[in-house]
Amino acid sequence: MPAFAEVAAPIAYEGPKSRNPLAFKHYNADELVEGKTMRDHLRFSVVYWHTFRGTGADPFGPGTMLRPWDDGSDSVENAKNRVRVAFEFFEKLGVPYYAWHDRDVAPEGASLAETNKNFDAVAAVLQEEQQRTGVKLLWGTANLFSNPRFMHGAATSCNADVFAYAAAQVKKALEVTHNLGGEGYTFWGGREGYQSLWNTDMKRELEHLARFLHLAVDYAKAIGFKGQFYIEPKPKEPTKHQYDSDAAACLNFLRQFDLLPYFKLNLETNHATLAGHTMQHELEVASGSGALGSIDANTGDLLLGWDTDQFPTDIYLTTQCMLSILKSGGLTTGGVNFDAKVRRESFEPIDLFYAHIGGMDAFARGLKIAAAIRAEGRLEQMVRDRYASWDSGLGAQIESGAHSFASLEKLMLDKGDAAPNQSGRQELFENVVNDYV
Amino acid sequence: MPAFAEVAAPIAYEGPKSRNPLAFKHYNADELVEGKTMRDHLRFSVVYWHTFRGTGADPFGPGTMLRPWDDGSDSVENAKNRVRVAFEFFEKLGVPYYAWHDRDVAPEGASLAETNKNFDAVAAVLQEEQQRTGVKLLWGTANLFSNPRFMHGAATSCNADVFAYAAAQVKKALEVTHNLGGEGYTFWGGREGYQSLWNTDMKRELEHLARFLHLAVDYAKAIGFKGQFYIEPKPKEPTKHQYDSDAAACLNFLRQFDLLPYFKLNLETNHATLAGHTMQHELEVASGSGALGSIDANTGDLLLGWDTDQFPTDIYLTTQCMLSILKSGGLTTGGVNFDAKVRRESFEPIDLFYAHIGGMDAFARGLKIAAAIRAEGRLEQMVRDRYASWDSGLGAQIESGAHSFASLEKLMLDKGDAAPNQSGRQELFENVVNDYV
Amino acid sequence: MPAFAEVAAPIAYEGPKSRNPLAFKHYNADELVEGKTMRDHLRFSVVYWHTFRGTGADPFGPGTMLRPWDDGSDSVENAKNRVRVAFEFFEKLGVPYYAWHDRDVAPEGASLAETNKNFDAVAAVLQEEQQRTGVKLLWGTANLFSNPRFMHGAATSCNADVFAYAAAQVKKALEVTHNLGGEGYTFWGGREGYQSLWNTDMKRELEHLARFLHLAVDYAKAIGFKGQFYIEPKPKEPTKHQYDSDAAACLNFLRQFDLLPYFKLNLETNHATLAGHTMQHELEVASGSGALGSIDANTGDLLLGWDTDQFPTDIYLTTQCMLSILKSGGLTTGGVNFDAKVRRESFEPIDLFYAHIGGMDAFARGLKIAAAIRAEGRLEQMVRDRYASWDSGLGAQIESGAHSFASLEKLMLDKGDAAPNQSGRQELFENVVNDYV
Amino acid sequence: MPAFAEVAAPIAYEGPKSRNPLAFKHYNADELVEGKTMRDHLRFSVVYWHTFRGTGADPFGPGTMLRPWDDGSDSVENAKNRVRVAFEFFEKLGVPYYAWHDRDVAPEGASLAETNKNFDAVAAVLQEEQQRTGVKLLWGTANLFSNPRFMHGAATSCNADVFAYAAAQVKKALEVTHNLGGEGYTFWGGREGYQSLWNTDMKRELEHLARFLHLAVDYAKAIGFKGQFYIEPKPKEPTKHQYDSDAAACLNFLRQFDLLPYFKLNLETNHATLAGHTMQHELEVASGSGALGSIDANTGDLLLGWDTDQFPTDIYLTTQCMLSILKSGGLTTGGVNFDAKVRRESFEPIDLFYAHIGGMDAFARGLKIAAAIRAEGRLEQMVRDRYASWDSGLGAQIESGAHSFASLEKLMLDKGDAAPNQSGRQELFENVVNDYV
Repeated sequence: MPAFAEVAAPIAYEGPKSRNPLAFKHYNADELVEGKTMRDHLRFSVVYWHTFRGTGADPFGPGTMLRPWDDGSDSVENAKNRVRVAFEFFEKLGVPYYAWHDRDVAPEGASLAETNKNFDAVAAVLQEEQQRTGVKLLWGTANLFSNPRFMHGAATSCNADVFAYAAAQVKKALEVTHNLGGEGYTFWGGREGYQSLWNTDMKRELEHLARFLHLAVDYAKAIGFKGQFYIEPKPKEPTKHQYDSDAAACLNFLRQFDLLPYFKLNLETNHATLAGHTMQHELEVASGSGALGSIDANTGDLLLGWDTDQFPTDIYLTTQCMLSILKSGGLTTGGVNFDAKVRRESFEPIDLFYAHIGGMDAFARGLKIAAAIRAEGRLEQMVRDRYASWDSGLGAQIESGAHSFASLEKLMLDKGDAAPNQSGRQELFENVVNDYV
Repeated sequence: MPAFAEVAAPIAYEGPKSRNPLAFKHYNADELVEGKTMRDHLRFSVVYWHTFRGTGADPFGPGTMLRPWDDGSDSVENAKNRVRVAFEFFEKLGVPYYAWHDRDVAPEGASLAETNKNFDAVAAVLQEEQQRTGVKLLWGTANLFSNPRFMHGAATSCNADVFAYAAAQVKKALEVTHNLGGEGYTFWGGREGYQSLWNTDMKRELEHLARFLHLAVDYAKAIGFKGQFYIEPKPKEPTKHQYDSDAAACLNFLRQFDLLPYFKLNLETNHATLAGHTMQHELEVASGSGALGSIDANTGDLLLGWDTDQFPTDIYLTTQCMLSILKSGGLTTGGVNFDAKVRRESFEPIDLFYAHIGGMDAFARGLKIAAAIRAEGRLEQMVRDRYASWDSGLGAQIESGAHSFASLEKLMLDKGDAAPNQSGRQELFENVVNDYV
Repeated sequence: MPAFAEVAAPIAYEGPKSRNPLAFKHYNADELVEGKTMRDHLRFSVVYWHTFRGTGADPFGPGTMLRPWDDGSDSVENAKNRVRVAFEFFEKLGVPYYAWHDRDVAPEGASLAETNKNFDAVAAVLQEEQQRTGVKLLWGTANLFSNPRFMHGAATSCNADVFAYAAAQVKKALEVTHNLGGEGYTFWGGREGYQSLWNTDMKRELEHLARFLHLAVDYAKAIGFKGQFYIEPKPKEPTKHQYDSDAAACLNFLRQFDLLPYFKLNLETNHATLAGHTMQHELEVASGSGALGSIDANTGDLLLGWDTDQFPTDIYLTTQCMLSILKSGGLTTGGVNFDAKVRRESFEPIDLFYAHIGGMDAFARGLKIAAAIRAEGRLEQMVRDRYASWDSGLGAQIESGAHSFASLEKLMLDKGDAAPNQSGRQELFENVVNDYV
Repeated sequence: MPAFAEVAAPIAYEGPKSRNPLAFKHYNADELVEGKTMRDHLRFSVVYWHTFRGTGADPFGPGTMLRPWDDGSDSVENAKNRVRVAFEFFEKLGVPYYAWHDRDVAPEGASLAETNKNFDAVAAVLQEEQQRTGVKLLWGTANLFSNPRFMHGAATSCNADVFAYAAAQVKKALEVTHNLGGEGYTFWGGREGYQSLWNTDMKRELEHLARFLHLAVDYAKAIGFKGQFYIEPKPKEPTKHQYDSDAAACLNFLRQFDLLPYFKLNLETNHATLAGHTMQHELEVASGSGALGSIDANTGDLLLGWDTDQFPTDIYLTTQCMLSILKSGGLTTGGVNFDAKVRRESFEPIDLFYAHIGGMDAFARGLKIAAAIRAEGRLEQMVRDRYASWDSGLGAQIESGAHSFASLEKLMLDKGDAAPNQSGRQELFENVVNDYV
C-alpha cells in the first residue's frame, strides 16, 4: 500500500475555479510562460529535513507528527524505507528536485567510519529512486550544527578537532552529492557565529571559516564536482549572531577572503526578514553582485522573532521573488526549494500535500503575475522614466567619468540649484502592482 | 554675560562620592590610564547639530528648546553668535573636539554661491574660536539629506543634477574642513537608499554612490587633505533602507568598488542596534578589517524602532566600547563623538551640561573598567584558553595550511570523533565582567 | 479654477481591467454587497491632518509637499480657503466622511479665547461645505500633543494647569463636533504616557487620565452629544510608552475606571503592528468585548519601527479587516478612516488621488473577498468543525457550568486520556483564503 | 559521593574583592537591608525545570547537558534520585525556595491514574527533602503545553476532552502543592492562544479559559488551599499569540471575567521584553492594580526575538526590579524565582553554580543599590517635585473632583494659557541613578 494512499494519483491541475484542496489551481507544469515551461522556471524542490525528518517538536514540547511509515528507530532500514516514501511524495506532487543534509538521510553511527557507511547505504537507495522517478538532487549539504560536538560551531569552533571533523563530514557530503548528480552544494553555518562576544575571538574564527571554504573549493576541484556552491545567509538562531548574517555580510566575507568567484547565495525569505530586510532586497543585493543562486522558499511571521519556516502563500511575496528572478535571467543551477515546515498542529501526512500544493500554487501565481507585469512593461517604464536624467546629458557624462568635484561645482555655481525633482509615485507604483495581483 | 551663566567655571572633577550634578565624578582629563591621559584616550567631541541646532521637534510636535542666545533667525549674524556660545560650552565642558555638518554652522542662501559665502563667513569665526580655545574639529560632513532637493538621495538620487549639487556641496565642506584643520571627514548617507524597491534601480544607484566617493577621494588628494575619511553605517530612517546599513554592508560596498583603502568606519551605537547588532559586534567587525575609525557615542532604546540618539549612561555599553577600542590600539584620528540629543522635555540649557557630563562620566568609567580588566588579564586568559587547541598541534597545522579535506578525513576516520568540547562558560564570563563593573 | 484641475470630474468606476490610474477598479459606491451598498459598508473617511496639513517633514528634513492653494501662512483666511479645497477633494473622490483635529482646521491664537474664535470662524465654513456637499464628519478630536505645553502629556501631565488647558480644549472640540453633527469623538493620547519611568508616577497619571475621560463623558451628556466616544490604542511614538498601548491595555484601563460603557475602540493597523499584534488580532479583541468601533485604515512597514502611516494596498490585510467587521455586524457609527499619508517623495497634489484611490480599491476588494468567503461558508464551517466537541456532550456540559475539577478528574481517570486531536490545518486554511483572493 | 562534589561546602559570602567564582560577592543572606535580611527580601527560588530537567536542546540540536546523576530514563527511581540531587544543590546554594511543574518532578504514565501515582511517589521524596533542609516550595504549576495532547491549548483547546484532562491535571497539581505547603500556584498558558486566527474562535476560547480559572478557584477553596494564585504573562512562543500577552492583557482578562480578586501576576523579564515592555513597566502596571505577586528573574537578549531565559546579571535591571518591589511593599508570598537556564554550551554541572551565584549576586547588588537610593531620597524627591502642582491648588482641586470641563475652561480662558512646564530632566535622573550603581 502506498504511504500516501489518500492521494490516489499525482496532483493534477484543475484551474482557479477548483475547490479541490488536492489539486493545483495555478501550477500547470507544462504551461509556457515567457517561452519556458513553469516546471523549468520554478524548479521546485522538496526538502528532506522538514518534510521527512521534521517531528513537530518546538522548545516547549516534543514532536507531534504522524508518520505511519516511520518506525521511529535510527536504523538504516528505516532510513531506506523513508527514502522510498519520500520519492512517492515527490512523484505525486510532481516536483523535479529535492534537497538534503547528510544526517537527514542516514543515521550517525558510533564512529565516523560507520556513519559514512550508513550514508552510503542509504545513498544507494536515493540513487535508485532518482533513476526510477527522474527526480533530481538540487543540492546537498552537511548538518554541522545538530550534534553536540558542534555546540561551539564547526569551521569556527574553538576546538580544532571539530574543524577537522566538519571537514571530513563535508568531504563525504560533497562526494555523495557528486555521485548523485547534485546540481549544487550549500553551506549554512548554523552555529558559525557566537553566543557571546565575551568569550569569542571573531577575527580568528572568520579566518578559520575562510580556510574551511577554500578547502572545500579545492576538494571539489579534486573530485571534479562542477555543481554550484552556495552560502546561505541567516543572522541569528540558533546562535545569537551568525557570521553569514545577510547577503551583504556574506558577500563581504567572500570578497575579503577571495572566495567570491566560487560561491553564489541561497536566499531564504525568513532569514531575510530576521535580518531586517525584505526578501526582495536580498534578491537585489545578490543579483547586483551576480550572486543570486537559489532560493529557500518559505515565509516568516514578521511579528515573531524566530525562524518559523512557514509555507509561502502570500502572492505579493511570490510575485516579488519571481520578478527579481526573471529580471536576473531566471534560475539556472538553483531552484525554488521549499525550506518550510508544516505547523506542529498540522500533524497528519495529508497536511504535507496541502502545504506544498499551496506553496507551489502561490509561486505559480507569482510567476504568472511577474510575467504579466513584464509583458505589459508599465512598471519597468515607470522606473526607467525616473532615471531618465542619467541616460543623457549631465547624468551620462558623470557615469562615463567625465566629471570631477571641481567641474560639477562649476556647473552648480552657474546654475544655482539642481533641477526640480519629480514625485517618487510610490502609491501609484503600489496600485499598479495591484492591477496585476 | 556668558550664555551658560549658571555654570560659573569649567566643570571640575570631584570624584565618585560627589552629589554635585555639575561635576565630573569619573572623568579626570589628566589622569593616566594605561600610560595615556583620559583626555587622549577618549578624545571627546560635541556635535554641533544636536547640541546647537537641535530644536526638540519630533514627528508629533515642534521644537521646545530654550536657547536664549539664538534669535531664531536664519541670519549669518545669528550663526556667528551661535559659534561663540558653542565654544563657551566646549570650554566649560573641557572637551578637546567638536564636529559639524555644513548646514549646521551656516544658513543656506538663495543660490549655491550665496550658501558658500555664508559658510565661509561663519567658518572664519569657527577658525577664530578654535584658535582662542584650542578646541579642534574632529570631522566635518555635509548635510545631504535635509533640503527637499535630496528627497530621492544625493549621490544615489534619480536626478543627476542632485548628484552634481551634492558633489559641489561636499567639495566645499571638504575645503572648509581642511582649512579648519579637521582630522577627518564623514559620509553619512541619510537618504542614500530607497523608500520602495518598486521604483528603484539599486544597482545603478550603488554605482553612482561609488563614483561619488571616488570623486571625493580624488578631490581630497587634489587639495592635500590628509584627514581620515569615514563612512557611517545606519540601516534605515529616514529611508526605509539605507545602502550603508551596517559595518559589513559598508565594507562589502567599499571592497566591491575599490574604496576600502580610503575609508574607515564611524560607528554609532543606535545605528548598530537598529541594524540588529550590538555596538560591540560592529566594533569587532570593523576592527577585524582594520577599519575601526571613530565612534558616535550615544545609545538607543532597544524597545523602540527609531533613532533615539540618547546620551549613553550604561556602564556595560561604555565598557564594551572602550575594551574594543583599547584592544584595537586606541582611537587615533577618531574620537568619542556625542551624537546624542537631550530629550524634547529636557529643554533648558542646563540640560545640555547634565547630558554631556553624564555621557563623559559613563565613558570614563568604561575606560577605567576596561583598563582594569586588561590589567588583571583574567578575561583575556579565559578567551585564550578556549582557543588553545589552535595554538599547537592540529589547530596550528590547519592554520598554517598543512591540511586538506582528505588529510583531515583520514585523521578523523582514525580517531572516530572529535575530542570533547569544554563548557563555553558564558555565565562565568558575565560574572567576571561584573567583578569589574 | 478648481484646486485639483487635473481631476476633471469625480473619480468613476471603470472596473478591474482599467489601466486608468484615476479610476476606481473595484470601489463602486452603489454596488450591493450582502444587501448594502459599498458606500454604506465602507463609510470611507479622509483625514484632514495628513491630507490637508501634512507637509512631508520627517526627522531628517522639512516638508516637501506642493500645495498651491495654501499660502503657507497661519491665517484664518488661509484656513478657510483650505476647507474649500478639502471639500473639492472629498467630492471628487466621492467619500461620505472626513475627520479632523481641532488644530488641523484652524490656527492657534495668542490666547485660548482667540484660538476658540479662530476655530469657530473656520468651523462655520466646514458647516457650509458639509451642507453643500453632503459630506459628513465621522469624528472630531483635539490635538493634545503638538503644542510644547503638552510635552509631558495632557491629562497625564505633571503640570496640573496643562490638564486644565486640555480640558478646555476638549470641551470646545466636543462642542464643535456636536454642532457639525459629528458621529463620534476620538481620544488619541499622543503623549499620555512616559519617556522615562525614572521620573514618572504612573499610578497617579492614570488616575488623572481616568478623571479626564469621566469629565468628558459628563460634558457630552450636558450638551446632549450622542456621538460615539472612541479611544485609539498606540504603544509608543512620540513617547517611549503610551498608556493606551493596545486594545487590551485600553480595555483594562476602561474597565478599571468604570469607563467601558462609554467608549469603543478606534483601531489602526500601524498602531496594532507597533504593539506586536496583527490588525486582525486587535479587531477580534475589541469585538470580543463589544468595543469594535471604527478603524484607522493604513498600514505600516513591519520591518520599520515607527508609524509610517502608509496607504493600505495589501489585499490580505483589507480582507481580514472586512471579514472581522462583517462578522461583528458591520460598521455603525465608525468608518474606514484613511489615517495615512503620502510619502515625502510623493509631493504633488495628484499623489493624494493615487493614494486614496488605491486605498479605497484595496478595501473594496477586501470587502468583496470577505463577502465571497462568507457567502460560500467554507472557512466558517471549517472553524465550526474544529470546535464541534464543544457543541454537545462534555463540551456543552462544561460550557453550561455542569462540571467541576472533581467531576472532570473522575471522567479522565476513567478514560485515561483525552480523545485524540485533529490537525489544525493551518496550511489548508491559508490555501482556502487564497482561493478567494 | 555528593552530586556536586566540586562544591565542597555551601557557597559563602566573601565580599566584593573576592575573585573566587564559587563565592558570593554581594549576597549575604543574614545582612540587614531596610531592617530585613537579604534572605527575606529576595526569597530566592530555583526552578526545577531548567535546572534539573533542562537538556540544552534547541530547535537546531539535541541536548548537551552533562548530568552524571541522571540515568536518562523516565523511571520513578531516577526521578526520586534527581530530587535528592536538587536539594543538595539548593542547600549548597543556600536558597530558601524552589518551584516545579508537575511533569518536571515525575514522569507521565500510561494513564492519568498512573501519572498521578508517579507524581505522588516523587512528591513524597520532595516532602522528605523539604523537611530535611527547610527549603520550601514557592509555587507549583502544571505543564499543560508539552504533551502533544495540548497542541491546540489546554483550557482553550478546541478539543473539550483536553479541557477536562487539563482540569484533572491542575486539580492534582494543586493538591500536591497544598500538601507540600506551597506558598502559591502559577498558571502559565503556554499554548493558551493561537497559531492562526483563520482557524480560531477567540471569544469562545477566552470564555473557556475563564471558566477553567474559576473552577481552579473553586477547587482551591474546596481543599482549603490558601496560597496565592498567579497568572504569568507572555505574548508569544510557543504559539504565535498567547492570550495572557502582558500585564495589561492579563488584568483586562481577569477583570472581564471577575477573576481579579483571586490572582496576582508573576512577571518575567524576558516575557516583558518580548511584549515590547521593560520589566520595570510591567512591575509598575501590576503594582498599580495591587497585583504584583512574584517575579521570574531572568533576562532576554533584546536583539533576539525568542525567550532566551538567560541568567540576570545586569545591575540596572536588578536595581529597577528591587526598587519597584521595595516601593510596593516587598515580596510577600512571591519570590525572586530564577526561571533561567544555562546556555547550551555551558553543559557542565558547575555552570549551574556559576549561573545562580551570578544571578543572586546581581539581585543582591540591585537590592543594596535600591535601598541606598531610597535611603538618600534624592530620586524620590525629584519625582515628587515634578508633580508638585497636583499637591495643592488647582491640581488638588481636580483630584478631589471639584472641577468640570466648564469650570476648567473658564479658568483657562481667564488665564490664557497653562503655566510653563519644567524640564523633565531625564538625563539628570539617569546620572543620579549612576551615582548609586
